[in-house]
Amino acid sequence: MTKTPDSAVRSYIAQHQEAFLADLADWLRIPSVSADPDRAGDVRRSAEWLAEKLRGTGFPVVEVWETDGLPAVFAEWPAGEAGVPTVLVYGHHDVQPAAKADGWRTEPFEPTVVGNRLHARGAADDKGQVFFHTLGLRAHLAATGRSAPAVNLKLLIEGEEESGSPNFGALIRRQAERLAADLVVVSDTGMWDERTPTVCTGMRGKLDCQIDLTGPDSDIHSGSFGGAVPNPATTAAELAAALHDEQRRIALPGFYDGIVELTERERELFAKLPFDEAGWLATAKSHGLQGEAGYSTLERIWARPTAEVNGVWGGYTGPGTKTIVPAEAHLKLSFRLVAGQEPERIEQTVRDWVAARVPAGIGHRVHFGSITRPCLTPLDHPALRSTVRAMERAFEQEVLFTREGGSGPAADLRDVLGATVLFLGISVPSDGWHSVDEKVELDLLLKGVEAAAYLWGDLAENHR
Amino acid sequence: MTKTPDSAVRSYIAQHQEAFLADLADWLRIPSVSADPDRAGDVRRSAEWLAEKLRGTGFPVVEVWETDGLPAVFAEWPAGEAGVPTVLVYGHHDVQPAAKADGWRTEPFEPTVVGNRLHARGAADDKGQVFFHTLGLRAHLAATGRSAPAVNLKLLIEGEEESGSPNFGALIRRQAERLAADLVVVSDTGMWDERTPTVCTGMRGKLDCQIDLTGPDSDIHSGSFGGAVPNPATTAAELAAALHDEQRRIALPGFYDGIVELTERERELFAKLPFDEAGWLATAKSHGLQGEAGYSTLERIWARPTAEVNGVWGGYTGPGTKTIVPAEAHLKLSFRLVAGQEPERIEQTVRDWVAARVPAGIGHRVHFGSITRPCLTPLDHPALRSTVRAMERAFEQEVLFTREGGSGPAADLRDVLGATVLFLGISVPSDGWHSVDEKVELDLLLKGVEAAAYLWGDLAENHR
Repeated sequence: MTKTPDSAVRSYIAQHQEAFLADLADWLRIPSVSADPDRAGDVRRSAEWLAEKLRGTGFPVVEVWETDGLPAVFAEWPAGEAGVPTVLVYGHHDVQPAAKADGWRTEPFEPTVVGNRLHARGAADDKGQVFFHTLGLRAHLAATGRSAPAVNLKLLIEGEEESGSPNFGALIRRQAERLAADLVVVSDTGMWDERTPTVCTGMRGKLDCQIDLTGPDSDIHSGSFGGAVPNPATTAAELAAALHDEQRRIALPGFYDGIVELTERERELFAKLPFDEAGWLATAKSHGLQGEAGYSTLERIWARPTAEVNGVWGGYTGPGTKTIVPAEAHLKLSFRLVAGQEPERIEQTVRDWVAARVPAGIGHRVHFGSITRPCLTPLDHPALRSTVRAMERAFEQEVLFTREGGSGPAADLRDVLGATVLFLGISVPSDGWHSVDEKVELDLLLKGVEAAAYLWGDLAENHR
Repeated sequence: MTKTPDSAVRSYIAQHQEAFLADLADWLRIPSVSADPDRAGDVRRSAEWLAEKLRGTGFPVVEVWETDGLPAVFAEWPAGEAGVPTVLVYGHHDVQPAAKADGWRTEPFEPTVVGNRLHARGAADDKGQVFFHTLGLRAHLAATGRSAPAVNLKLLIEGEEESGSPNFGALIRRQAERLAADLVVVSDTGMWDERTPTVCTGMRGKLDCQIDLTGPDSDIHSGSFGGAVPNPATTAAELAAALHDEQRRIALPGFYDGIVELTERERELFAKLPFDEAGWLATAKSHGLQGEAGYSTLERIWARPTAEVNGVWGGYTGPGTKTIVPAEAHLKLSFRLVAGQEPERIEQTVRDWVAARVPAGIGHRVHFGSITRPCLTPLDHPALRSTVRAMERAFEQEVLFTREGGSGPAADLRDVLGATVLFLGISVPSDGWHSVDEKVELDLLLKGVEAAAYLWGDLAENHR
C-alpha cells in the first residue's frame, strides 16, 4: 500500500524545511527574467540550478532541454512497478521582470522573510510552487519507505512562460514520446485565499484576433463626404457593439454550441466560496459589474466564454478636432473559451461573422494569434478526487473548487499527450503575481509540500 | 436704373484684366500662411497689401483690424443714397501651408500661368475670389457711370480662416455695429464644375465633441475580470454604433426635429447637376456609398444632417496581443447640422443620449468644441435671385444650385448681423484647395469679376 502516514510526512517536512527554504532562496536569487534578452544567461543558470537540485532529489534522469528560445528542464523517475499512472508535473522557472525602483519594499532578487512571508520575484509564480515538489517527493519516499515514487513521475519546467511560451508547443510535440503521461499536474495556479483551500478544475481557452478595416484611401473631409460613404471607424464600432446582445450573451451565431455547461453541483460549490463582491471589485479596480445574464460573477469569469475588446483605434486621436472620415480603423478582440468550444470552429465563426457584417466599400482582414485550448476536469474524476484528498489531508479542512479565468499552456499538454489535467497550487491572490512585493505564505508553501507528498500515493491507489 | 450694360462691363474688364492679374500675382507671392507662427509677419503684410489695394480701388474707408491673432481687413464704401441694401463681402487673405517639396510642379508662392490656369497657393482659396471683387466693383462703376457702388458696400477679409477662425466670432461681435448689413456675400466657395455654373444656397453647421469613457482604474487582465465588468472600449463602440439606425438615419431622439426639409424644386434642380458617381467616389477616395435611406448622395452631403466618428481609441493598439479590459476609451464625433437645427439643442440631445446609454461602472465626460451654425437661403429669396441673374449674365447659361456640405464662419455673420447669406464663387473642384498645385481657371476668374460687376446693381434694384 502506498498511502503515506500523515505524521511521518509532517515530521519529515519539519526536519527538512529549513534547508528547503534556504535552497529556494538560492534559486530565487537568480533573476531568470525571460522577457529581458540581457537575462538569457540567468534563465539558463536557473535551469541548470534546478537540474542539479533535481538530481540531488534523486531523479535518475534530469535533462536541460533546449528550445529556439530559453531552456526547459525535464526530469523523470519511474515507479519501478507496473500498473501505476504516469504523471507529468508542469511549472516554469522563468519570472516576470522586477526592480526595486518599481516600488518594492525589498530587493526583488534578494529573498527576504518578513513575518511568515517570503518576499521575492518568483516566490509564488512559479519557483516556490515548482520547488515544493522536491521536498514533497522526498517526504513521500521517506514516509512510505519507497526508493522510487508511487507513480511514474516526470517534470517539465519551462523557461518562457512569462513570455507567452512561444516555443512550448513545438517542444512538447517534439518530445511527446518522452513526455507521455496519463495525468498532468499543473503547479502554476493557486487557491481561493489563505483560509480557503481549493482545487482548480480547469482553465479557459483563448482566441485573439485583430480586425483591420479600410475605408477611403486616405482620411477624407467629413463635411464634404461624410454621411455618403461608409466610415471604417463606425464599422469597427458596429462590430464591437454587435459582439453582445442585450443580455450580454455573445451574439455570434453558434458561439455557444456544444459547450460543457456548469453542473448544479459545481454552481453550489462555487456559491460556498466566501466571495466578497466589494473586495473583488476593488481588486478588479472596476466600478461596476456587468456580464452575461443568469450567471454569478465567478461563473462569468471561470465557466462562461467571453468576448472582450482589448483595443480599438482609428482616425484622429490628438487634441482638438479633425473632421475626417478616417481611412482605417482597427479592433483587437479576444475570446475566452470553455470546454466544448473548438478554437478552430470559433475562429471560422468570427471570420464569417465579420465578413457578413462589413458593409460594401469597407475592406477587412482578420488576423488570428495563437490558440489556447480550454481544459476542464469533471468534479467526479478519480484523479481530481485524489488531488482533493491530498489537499484535505494537508489542510485538514474541506476543499472547495475554483477554475482559472485565464488561459495557460497547460491545455497544450492535455491535447498533445491526451492527458487529464490536474492543478495543485497553494498561492493566494494577495501573493502579488506580476506585481511588486511578490511573496509566498510560508505556512501555505509547506502545506503545498505536504499535499504533494500525499498525492502520488493516492493517485497510484485510485488511478490504475 | 442701376442695371449695368453687359457690353460696357465686358470691355472694361478686357481693358484692365492684365493689370488685375499682375496685381493678384503680387498678392499671391506673399506667403500668408496663418497656421505657421513664422509667417505671422507675412499674414500682416498680406493684410496691408490688400488694404492698400482697396484704397486704390476707391474705398473711402479701409482699416486693418487687429484681433488676438492675425489681422483682418475691413473696407466700406457707402452708396451715397438712401433705400439701398447694405452688403458685406466676406473672404480671407490667409492661405494653407505649401512647399514645393510637397510635390508641387511650380513654386507655390511664385504664381505661374500654365495654359489658362494661374497656379499658386491661394489662387482659388481665397485670394483670387476676394480679389475679383476689386475689378468687378470698378467695372460696375465704369459701366454705370456711378461714383459709388449701387449698394452700401463693406468688405471683411479675415486672416485666420485656414486656422479655424479662432478670433473671428469675437471680432464680429465687437465690430457688429460697423459690420451691420442686410446681406452677406461669401466669396469663399465655388461652383459645380468648369462647365456648370452654380450658386451655393447654404452651408451645414457643425458640432463636435469628444466623449471620454473610464472603466477600471487601470488596464486589468481580461482573463481574470473580463466578462464580469464593463469595458469602456465596448461602451465607446456601443455609442458609436448606436448613432445610426439600420436606415442610416441618426438615432438620437429628436435629432431631426424642426429641420428645414429639401423642397421638391430643390431636389429636381440638384438632380439636373451632371453628377458622376464614379468620379465622385474617386474624388472621395472611397470604395462604396452608404448613407441615409431615401436621399441621393448630393442630398446626403449637402442637405441632410450627419453624425460621423472622426476618431476612436482605447486599450492596446501595438503589435500582437494584450489581453486587457482597458482603463479608458475615447470617441471623437462630429455632427453636421442643417437649417432648423439649433446646435445648443443638439448638444443637449447628445449629452442626454450619452448619459442614458453609459452602463453602471463606466464614467463619462462629454466635451464640446466650438459651434458652427447652419445657414440656408431659400431658392425664391430676392437676393438669391439677384445672385443667380448676375451669374447667368456672366456665364450666359442656366445657373443651377449647390450647397456646401462643410461648415464655415460665414454663418456667424448671419447670426451676429441678422443678415441673409449669399455665395458668389467661381472656383471648381479641380482647383486643388489645401492640396498641391492649387490653381484658378483664368476664364472663370474673369467670369467672377463680371458677376461681381452685375450683382450690386441687381441687388439695389431688387432688394429694397
